[in-house]
Amino acid sequence: MTHFVHDLRLPQLAASYRSGALTPRQLLLGLRTQAEQLNESNPLFIHLLTEAELEPYLTALENNNPEELPLYGVPFALKDNIDLAGIPTTAACPAYAYTPEKSATLVQQLIDLGAVPLGKSNLDQFATGLNGTRSPYGACHNATHPDYPAGGSSSGSALSVALGLCSFALGTDTAGSGRVPAALNNLVGLKQTRGLLSVAGVVPACRTLDCVTYFAATAAECSTLLGLTAKQDSADDYSRTNPLWNAADAFGTPRPFRFGVPKAVEFLGCTESPALFDQAIEHLKAIGGTPVEIDLTPFMAAAKLLYDGPWVAERYSVAGPLIESDPDAVLPVIRAVLEKAPDFTAQDSFENQYRLQAFKVICDRVLSDVDCILTPTIPRPVTLAELDAEPVARNSDLGYYTNFMNLLDYTAVAVPSGFMANGLPWGVTLFSRAFTDHYLLSLAAAVQQHSGLPLSGERSLDSSLPTTPARNDMARVVVCGAHLDGLPLNWQLRQRGGRLLQATKSSPDYKLYALAGGPPMRPGMLRVSEGGQAIKVEVWELPSRELGSFLTGIPAPLGLGKVQLADGRWETGFICDPYGLEGASDITEFGGWKAWLASR
Amino acid sequence: MTHFVHDLRLPQLAASYRSGALTPRQLLLGLRTQAEQLNESNPLFIHLLTEAELEPYLTALENNNPEELPLYGVPFALKDNIDLAGIPTTAACPAYAYTPEKSATLVQQLIDLGAVPLGKSNLDQFATGLNGTRSPYGACHNATHPDYPAGGSSSGSALSVALGLCSFALGTDTAGSGRVPAALNNLVGLKQTRGLLSVAGVVPACRTLDCVTYFAATAAECSTLLGLTAKQDSADDYSRTNPLWNAADAFGTPRPFRFGVPKAVEFLGCTESPALFDQAIEHLKAIGGTPVEIDLTPFMAAAKLLYDGPWVAERYSVAGPLIESDPDAVLPVIRAVLEKAPDFTAQDSFENQYRLQAFKVICDRVLSDVDCILTPTIPRPVTLAELDAEPVARNSDLGYYTNFMNLLDYTAVAVPSGFMANGLPWGVTLFSRAFTDHYLLSLAAAVQQHSGLPLSGERSLDSSLPTTPARNDMARVVVCGAHLDGLPLNWQLRQRGGRLLQATKSSPDYKLYALAGGPPMRPGMLRVSEGGQAIKVEVWELPSRELGSFLTGIPAPLGLGKVQLADGRWETGFICDPYGLEGASDITEFGGWKAWLASR
Repeated sequence: MTHFVHDLRLPQLAASYRSGALTPRQLLLGLRTQAEQLNESNPLFIHLLTEAELEPYLTALENNNPEELPLYGVPFALKDNIDLAGIPTTAACPAYAYTPEKSATLVQQLIDLGAVPLGKSNLDQFATGLNGTRSPYGACHNATHPDYPAGGSSSGSALSVALGLCSFALGTDTAGSGRVPAALNNLVGLKQTRGLLSVAGVVPACRTLDCVTYFAATAAECSTLLGLTAKQDSADDYSRTNPLWNAADAFGTPRPFRFGVPKAVEFLGCTESPALFDQAIEHLKAIGGTPVEIDLTPFMAAAKLLYDGPWVAERYSVAGPLIESDPDAVLPVIRAVLEKAPDFTAQDSFENQYRLQAFKVICDRVLSDVDCILTPTIPRPVTLAELDAEPVARNSDLGYYTNFMNLLDYTAVAVPSGFMANGLPWGVTLFSRAFTDHYLLSLAAAVQQHSGLPLSGERSLDSSLPTTPARNDMARVVVCGAHLDGLPLNWQLRQRGGRLLQATKSSPDYKLYALAGGPPMRPGMLRVSEGGQAIKVEVWELPSRELGSFLTGIPAPLGLGKVQLADGRWETGFICDPYGLEGASDITEFGGWKAWLASR
Repeated sequence: MTHFVHDLRLPQLAASYRSGALTPRQLLLGLRTQAEQLNESNPLFIHLLTEAELEPYLTALENNNPEELPLYGVPFALKDNIDLAGIPTTAACPAYAYTPEKSATLVQQLIDLGAVPLGKSNLDQFATGLNGTRSPYGACHNATHPDYPAGGSSSGSALSVALGLCSFALGTDTAGSGRVPAALNNLVGLKQTRGLLSVAGVVPACRTLDCVTYFAATAAECSTLLGLTAKQDSADDYSRTNPLWNAADAFGTPRPFRFGVPKAVEFLGCTESPALFDQAIEHLKAIGGTPVEIDLTPFMAAAKLLYDGPWVAERYSVAGPLIESDPDAVLPVIRAVLEKAPDFTAQDSFENQYRLQAFKVICDRVLSDVDCILTPTIPRPVTLAELDAEPVARNSDLGYYTNFMNLLDYTAVAVPSGFMANGLPWGVTLFSRAFTDHYLLSLAAAVQQHSGLPLSGERSLDSSLPTTPARNDMARVVVCGAHLDGLPLNWQLRQRGGRLLQATKSSPDYKLYALAGGPPMRPGMLRVSEGGQAIKVEVWELPSRELGSFLTGIPAPLGLGKVQLADGRWETGFICDPYGLEGASDITEFGGWKAWLASR
C-alpha cells in the first residue's frame, strides 16, 4: 500500500495549500484512494464519497479564494448518524437508513467554511456502544494495535483522523462515544458543552443528552473548530447561547490552576494504568496545576442512572419502532440494551430526574472548588477477545469515567497522555463546568505541548499556545479599597461567589487618594508617570456572569479598567475618573487603604 | 364580630411596634381571636396556632430587639402543605398528615427574621386545584363576594391576608396556585423564579416545577420578603443561585419599557373583563410601558402539557401510595386527576420534554424582545355554583393564563388591576424571564401606585417607590468610539445579544481624545470641570451576564465607569484612565468619534 503522507493539521494543511504544493483535489482524491485501501482491513467507512460525489465540493473550492475560507480543503469524516445531503444516513442499521435532502446544520457550516467530507464513518449501531464492534458493516479495530477495538461508538470517525485520512472528524457523544475512541487512538476528543454545536440533522441517541463532537490530533485544532462552529441554531431545540467568556479567544496559556484528582482511582485491575495516571498528574503540575483530592463517588452514582435508569427510553424512541416491526434488523446486543425501555414509567423517569438533580448539586459543589477534574478516560483498555466473550460487561468497563458527563451537563476533553508497553495509546480526560470548553482545551493543549507525545497520523507536535491567558467562567478583579477582605463592601464580592486569589501590590506607578464623601470611605487609584508607588491590592475571582452587576453597582467616579500588578501583568480592577479627585487627599505614602484607615 | 383593625403592611406594622402602640403579643392574640371567629364562616385555617403554640414565638420576640429583626412580630399564614415544626402538615388530606420535627427552611428563615406563624391555611387537597373548594376541611369562599370561590390551591393563605389577619402568607404554585387566589382577593401574588425560595419541607406537587410563593397587599412587600429570604438551600436540590442583578436593590422606579400584549385575549365569554384588561394596558402605558403585540399561542400550547402530559406522574409520586392503599382517603376529584398518571411511560415523559423544549425556544424568543408580557390572571371568575356543576372544567378555566409559567421557567407577578361591577377583584399578571423578579415587582408596584386601588384588609395605598431605577437581567453601556453602531468593534456588543437603545449625547462636561496606537483607533472620553462639550454617544443594552466578559476584554487605558448623559442621568459607560492620554489628540471640537473619523 502506498501511503500518502501529509500533515493534515489545520495550520499545516493551510500552509501547504498556500504554498501551492497541494490542491484540495489532489489531496482529497489521494486520501480517497488510500481510505478505500485501508477500509478493506479496517471498516472505518460505511460510505466513502465517490469521485463524483466529491466533485461538487472540489469544484466549489476551485471557485473560491483559499484565504477567505478558514477550512479551505480540509478533509473530514462524519459519523454515519449525521446527515450529509444526498448520502444515506444508516446509524449502522441498514433497515433504518434514509437519504437526507439537507446536511446536518453543523456539516453545512463546515462545508460553507471550506471543509470537504471524505466519508460517512462506521459506528456502534444507533451510537449505542463504546467499543466500535457493534456494526453490521464490520468491527473496527484499533489504529495502533489489531488486538484492541477502535473504541466507539464513534469508531470510524476516530480512525479516520488517527490513520491520517482526515484533519478532523465528527462524532457524537452521549455516554462517552466522543472520548473513548480518542483515548484508544491517540487523539483529542472534545465533548463540548451540550447545546454549543447544533445536533439538527443528527440521529438522536438520548435527545436530552446528545452532543456532536470533534476528534482532532491537537486540542488547538478542536478550539479552532469549536470557535468557528459554535452558533445557536434555531433548528435545534436544545441549542444554547454560548456566553462569550467561552469564545475562541479564551484559548490561551494556562495560568496557575487547581485540578481535582479522585481520592480512589479505579483501573479495573490494569497494572500499567496507575503509573500512566500518575504521569498525567505530573504533566498537569508541570503546566501550573495544583492537584486537589476530590471524591468521585457522586459522579459515579450519577453515571449509573444512564443505563440502569429511564434514559434508555430516549434511545427506544429512535430504534423502538424498528425493533417492534422487524426485530432482526437490529443487532441482538443493541436490542438487549433497549428492550428494558418500555418497562419504565413516567414516574420512574421523574424520580430518576430527582436523583440526578441531587447528585448534580453535590457534584457541582465539588467542581466549584477547582478549575477542572482529571480522570483516566478509560480505566483500562479491553481486548477484542474480551469484548467477544462478554460484550456488555466489557463495553461498560470502557464507559466507567465517561457516562456521567452529559447527565451532569459538564464539558470534557479527552487528551492523549502516554502509551502502554504494547504501544496502545493511553489518555486522560479533563472535565469541568458547562461553558469552559476553550479553557479545558487550553489545558489540554499545554499538556500536549509539555508531554511532547508523537501525534496520530504521522504528525509531530510543533505547536505553540497563544500568549494571552486561558480564560474560563471566572473573572478577576483587583480591589484596593472598601472591597478588600474584611472591609465594608467586601460582601459584594463574596455574595457573588467571589474568592480571594492573592494579596499583592500594584506596579510602582500609582497614587492612592481618599475620595471626598462617604461613608463608606472610598479610595481612588490613579496611574501616574512619576511620583507613583506600589499600592497594596487584592486579586479576587468571581463568576464572569456576576461581574456585570458588580460593575453597574459601582458609583462614579470609580470604574473598572486595567490595573498593572507588581509582577507586571495587567488585570481588570478599580480605576478612578480623575474629575473625582476634587477634594480628595493624597494618601499614597501609606502604601494601601488599610494602612491609611488604621492611621486615622 | 368585633373587627380588630390594624394596617398589617410591613412598614406600617414596624412603625406601630416602634411607636409602642402595639406589641406582638397584643397583635397576635387579637388576630388569633379574630381568625377563630372568621374561620367559622370561611374555613381558611386548617390549624390555627393555640395560645400555647404561639407562646414560644412571642417569648422569643420579647427577648429580642425589634430593630434587629426585619420581620419583628409580623404575622403570617402558611399553606398546610408547608412544614411548621410540631404542627401536623396535612396537605388537606387527613390520612396523609404527619407532624414534622423541623420547619420548612423558608418558614424557619421567616421565624428567624421575627415573623410569627398564625396558622396553617386551607388548600385544595395536595395543592391540586385552582379554586379552593377541594378540601375536606371545607370549601373556602371569596373574601369579597360569597358566591365566588377564594381561588386555589392556596385559598386559605390568600384569605388570611385579604381578610386582614396576616401581613403576608406563604402559598405554593405549580400551575397557578399562588396567582389565581391573588387575583380573586385583591392581592399581589409573587410566583418567583423557580429555585429562588427553598422548597425543602414543602409537600411536592410536581417537584420539577414547584414554587413556594408570597401573598401580600403590595408588590413592595413581596420584594422586601423575597430580598430577605432568597437564599440557596443545600437541603433543596432544586435551589438555584440568584444572579445579583436580581437582588432587592433591583426594585425601583421603572424606566421606559416594552410589554407584550397577546394579539388575541381569551376571556371565556366574560363581558366585563375585556374593558378591565384594556384599563390594565392603560395603567402600564401610564408608568412608561409601550405595548407590543405578541402571539400567546406557543405559551398556551406548553400549558396543555401540564395536565394532559406526564407531569401528573409527579403528583402521583406523592399521593399515589395513599390512593392505592386507601382510595377513599383522597377526594374523588383529585383521584380523577391523578388516576391517569400510571399510564404514562418514560418514553411519554421524554417525548413531552422534547415538546416542551420546542415550545420554550419559541416562547423565549417572544420574551427576548420585550421586558415582560401582560395577561389577565384569570380569563373570567367562575361562581361556586358553576364549580359545583362542573368541577374539573371550571377549575381549568381558572388556570388558562397560569399553567405554562413554571413549565417554561418564567417568573410572574399577579397584581390587582380593578374591580368588577359586583365588587369582585380583578387582576393581571406580568411575567418575564427567570431572575427578573424584583424588576416585575417594580412594575407591579408602579401599577399599584398609579391605579390607586384600595387594598385588601382595610388598608389604603400610600407607598412610594425607591428613586433608583428598576433593574432586570439587561445592563446598559454607553459607548463613544469603536463600539458605535457600524464601527469595527460593534460586533462585541451584537454578538452578546446587545441592542441599541438610544443615540444621544453626553452631558456638556467631556473632552474627547483620539488615543495613540491602533488599529482599531480608539477614543478616550474624559470628564472635565471646564472646556468640556456634549459628545455623541450611544446607549446599548446587553444581557448583564455578558457584561463581565465585555469588560475584561477592554484593554488599558480604557475601562467602564459612569458617564453622564445629556438628560442628566448617569449610566455605565466608557471612561479612560488619564495616563493613557499621552500622545493623544484632543478631538473634542468634532463633537463625536464618527465626525472625527469622517474628517480624516
